[in-house]
Amino acid sequence: MTRSLVFVTGNANKLLEVQAILKVHDIEVEAQALDIPEIQGTTLEVSAAKCRAAAKLIGGPCITEDTALVFKAMNGLPGPYIKDFMKNIGHAGLNAMLVGFPTKAATAICTFAYSPGPDQDPILFVGETEGEIVQPRGSTHFGWDAVFQASINGQTFAEMDPTFKNSISHRYKALAKLVEYLGQLPL
Amino acid sequence: MTRSLVFVTGNANKLLEVQAILKVHDIEVEAQALDIPEIQGTTLEVSAAKCRAAAKLIGGPCITEDTALVFKAMNGLPGPYIKDFMKNIGHAGLNAMLVGFPTKAATAICTFAYSPGPDQDPILFVGETEGEIVQPRGSTHFGWDAVFQASINGQTFAEMDPTFKNSISHRYKALAKLVEYLGQLPL
Repeated sequence: MTRSLVFVTGNANKLLEVQAILKVHDIEVEAQALDIPEIQGTTLEVSAAKCRAAAKLIGGPCITEDTALVFKAMNGLPGPYIKDFMKNIGHAGLNAMLVGFPTKAATAICTFAYSPGPDQDPILFVGETEGEIVQPRGSTHFGWDAVFQASINGQTFAEMDPTFKNSISHRYKALAKLVEYLGQLPL
Repeated sequence: MTRSLVFVTGNANKLLEVQAILKVHDIEVEAQALDIPEIQGTTLEVSAAKCRAAAKLIGGPCITEDTALVFKAMNGLPGPYIKDFMKNIGHAGLNAMLVGFPTKAATAICTFAYSPGPDQDPILFVGETEGEIVQPRGSTHFGWDAVFQASINGQTFAEMDPTFKNSISHRYKALAKLVEYLGQLPL
């Protein structure tokens, strides 16, 4: 039996990645692009606020997803603001802003949030992948993938075989927790 | 005749600075601390959204204020996120994140927003002061004042005589525009 879910995203790459992972678990993902302003705050605060607002707009259950890239040297930042940094200063800028710090260690964090419906507290599922910021290697098409070298095998996300990446990524780990949770819910 | 205004802020230092400047113009400022989540976005988007939300909560006219610190090398960033950066990496971190860039030039930006009331578009008043990021000099009590060296006289904001600072600061320039606007409104 196939279950389906509304995934609030306007990002075609993320949708494809999430669809690929959830298909294996017989969960069909329908995307809906909503214009929800993201708040400033910690990664968890940003995710919870977005999911709460989405459930209100949709009037029913939904999932949202947020990605953060945390530099160890910068104590949690750029974190949820990585999108703006990537857009404004690119791969070269992300490297440049770490030149003055002793460590280039970084953690890729994905947070899926599930809300059963309006005015209900979202439940958060967090996945993390350790690595470090390096000069870009591999395709530069998908955000900061080319400058994030994962500790697990020394490849950047952009150099990895997509299937392998889907099996070790922060997004996969967060999704795995979400899938486990969804599996326990009554149909 | 004295006019009074609700200034939405929980920051005692900003309140004192704004009260000092507006008192000269016979405008009394009453502070109200509201918990309004700030959105992610450009400096202007962040300000407009906050003022709109504040007017809705207050149910009447109000002013809000936002400060941004823009690094020329980082194309608008940290911008409205400077508060988080200051909190998480401090003066040393703000200097460190510019080590890898050729320019330390920065612009302090203050945006006052005035809303006549709920569901009315806020009007924005922007003031800017040019300078650069330096090692901290002067009192380190007021945000990033100690690391922002103004071009006008080579002092950091923290080294300046407060009266002089109030006469050249980004906040003063934005307030001057707000005051001019308020002076033209019917009482």
